[in-house]
Amino acid sequence: MILAIASAMVVSMRMPEDVHAGPGGRLFGGIEGGGTKFVCVIGRGPDDIVAEARVPTTTPEATLSQTADFFRAESATRGRLAAIGVGSFGPVDLREGSATWGFITTTPKAGWAHTDVAGRLKKDLGVPVAFDTDVNAAAIGEARWGAAQGLDTFVYLTVGTGIGGGGLVGGRPMHGLVHPEMGHMLLPHDRSLDAFPGVCPFHAGCLEGLASGPALLARWGQPAESLPADHPAWALEAHYLALALVNLVCTLSPQRIVLGGGVMEQAQLFPLIRKEVVALLNGYIRTTAIMDAIDAYIVPPGLGNRSGRLGALAMAERLAGSG
Amino acid sequence: MILAIASAMVVSMRMPEDVHAGPGGRLFGGIEGGGTKFVCVIGRGPDDIVAEARVPTTTPEATLSQTADFFRAESATRGRLAAIGVGSFGPVDLREGSATWGFITTTPKAGWAHTDVAGRLKKDLGVPVAFDTDVNAAAIGEARWGAAQGLDTFVYLTVGTGIGGGGLVGGRPMHGLVHPEMGHMLLPHDRSLDAFPGVCPFHAGCLEGLASGPALLARWGQPAESLPADHPAWALEAHYLALALVNLVCTLSPQRIVLGGGVMEQAQLFPLIRKEVVALLNGYIRTTAIMDAIDAYIVPPGLGNRSGRLGALAMAERLAGSG
Repeated sequence: MILAIASAMVVSMRMPEDVHAGPGGRLFGGIEGGGTKFVCVIGRGPDDIVAEARVPTTTPEATLSQTADFFRAESATRGRLAAIGVGSFGPVDLREGSATWGFITTTPKAGWAHTDVAGRLKKDLGVPVAFDTDVNAAAIGEARWGAAQGLDTFVYLTVGTGIGGGGLVGGRPMHGLVHPEMGHMLLPHDRSLDAFPGVCPFHAGCLEGLASGPALLARWGQPAESLPADHPAWALEAHYLALALVNLVCTLSPQRIVLGGGVMEQAQLFPLIRKEVVALLNGYIRTTAIMDAIDAYIVPPGLGNRSGRLGALAMAERLAGSG
Repeated sequence: MILAIASAMVVSMRMPEDVHAGPGGRLFGGIEGGGTKFVCVIGRGPDDIVAEARVPTTTPEATLSQTADFFRAESATRGRLAAIGVGSFGPVDLREGSATWGFITTTPKAGWAHTDVAGRLKKDLGVPVAFDTDVNAAAIGEARWGAAQGLDTFVYLTVGTGIGGGGLVGGRPMHGLVHPEMGHMLLPHDRSLDAFPGVCPFHAGCLEGLASGPALLARWGQPAESLPADHPAWALEAHYLALALVNLVCTLSPQRIVLGGGVMEQAQLFPLIRKEVVALLNGYIRTTAIMDAIDAYIVPPGLGNRSGRLGALAMAERLAGSG
């Protein structure tokens, strides 16, 4: 099933000929490919989305063909897209020149291991396709239109069903041997204070195991969103996130850290995390950004929960270049 | 006191006119600026060092003027240097366009806080000066001539009096808000198994506090180099280093990790660390580099203890470009 939502207000503000009116008018596609749905957008930026669709993540064949159908149908009336960006769940292959570049690789998600995503869409739609992790896409979106504008080295960390991180370093999305898996960093875990063993099947004491949404559910017996704002769950959650952020600061020296995802919609976490990061660093990193302006250093996404899909759009824009 | 050592063998292989024989013959300077000495080299690469000096780190005025004297005297006979690179102890200011770019900033080392290093040398010597952390310099050296050739994303971690890390990400040295301080990442520390509290005055349970040379000395009551290879100190040391490396893998996804510094001259550490990194990752990062070829993934420096000074030379070469 495809649920296509045309943004009538935006469409009504725009004459059809604008679509073909040179570089400024070019349309891009963005796909936030998640484990439950693929969110697809067409547009030029956060205030200029002209069409949107949600495709359920079922089998690769069904999901990718329905995704392609949406872009093909919209292109028929709106004109050819300059490029499409995909921010995908993973793990994925991002190595330039690799025979499996643009694939989802060893995912445990049933049916999706070794799926060619970027190549399939490129072949079906005949447009250039940019491809990255979902969290790098979100980071690129935040750099383009959100809370990380003007920065070249920063981290975007999402805290939800899983915990994942991406970012830019020196202006480039973080790739490497595979790509970051920040949710699996190992943290101090004092079992005399917190006996909960974590929910990660791979690692005792990793960030995702201790602080993801499923960890909150398993530890407290109720979903994160049903815990009151003054519940002790949040101080403990802030503690683990602060430990992780200290390690990100020491490893990457980001100019800012953007915290998104469902768990971070609990706004009471931000002041708790900021205070503990400053306390844990204990004056070692002597910079005003951390010592005097932590409220502007650890921040929510500027694009809310749209960082990923808009970042995918920004990836398409980057790929198509200024021409 | 300056102890200048001319590499007679190399000099004898080279006709004087080669020094001025176009791009291939240009000479570069490199400075490894440490807390006890500044090691200065002139040359073109690891097998072509034509002069070397060691200047004790006393006051900024004495050390920097003696350093400049060495390069000035050598230039008088060998010809002008194309550029000089400096890999410095820190913290340092690496922000392009900053008024204090090229300074050592808030170091606790007496007399050295807020010292202009790069600007002073540039003014005294009249040549372009590249500037970075000591560990980024070492990483650049390893990328140019050592164990990280051909890689664009890797980490160099030094384990000695302190623990510090640098590297390239996407081909660029790691900078950011300040620069990495990898030695201060916080690690799991089970005090029921290891009651030693660590030696870092800032952080309980950070990598440097638990695993630096001074930590080994304080924990075991004797210097690292006097502990026999089968002493239990090494399994514990490997444990903390493996925890740190897992976090670096999860955060940066490096294509390789180079481990240098005095403590890593204990070669028995390498197999212990490799085995524990694989065990801790527990199959989560499914890549042959880690699962099948860990011996080539966690490696000693290809340049031995010369990574820093040769990296500084490579920084000069980068700055001067191919012209």
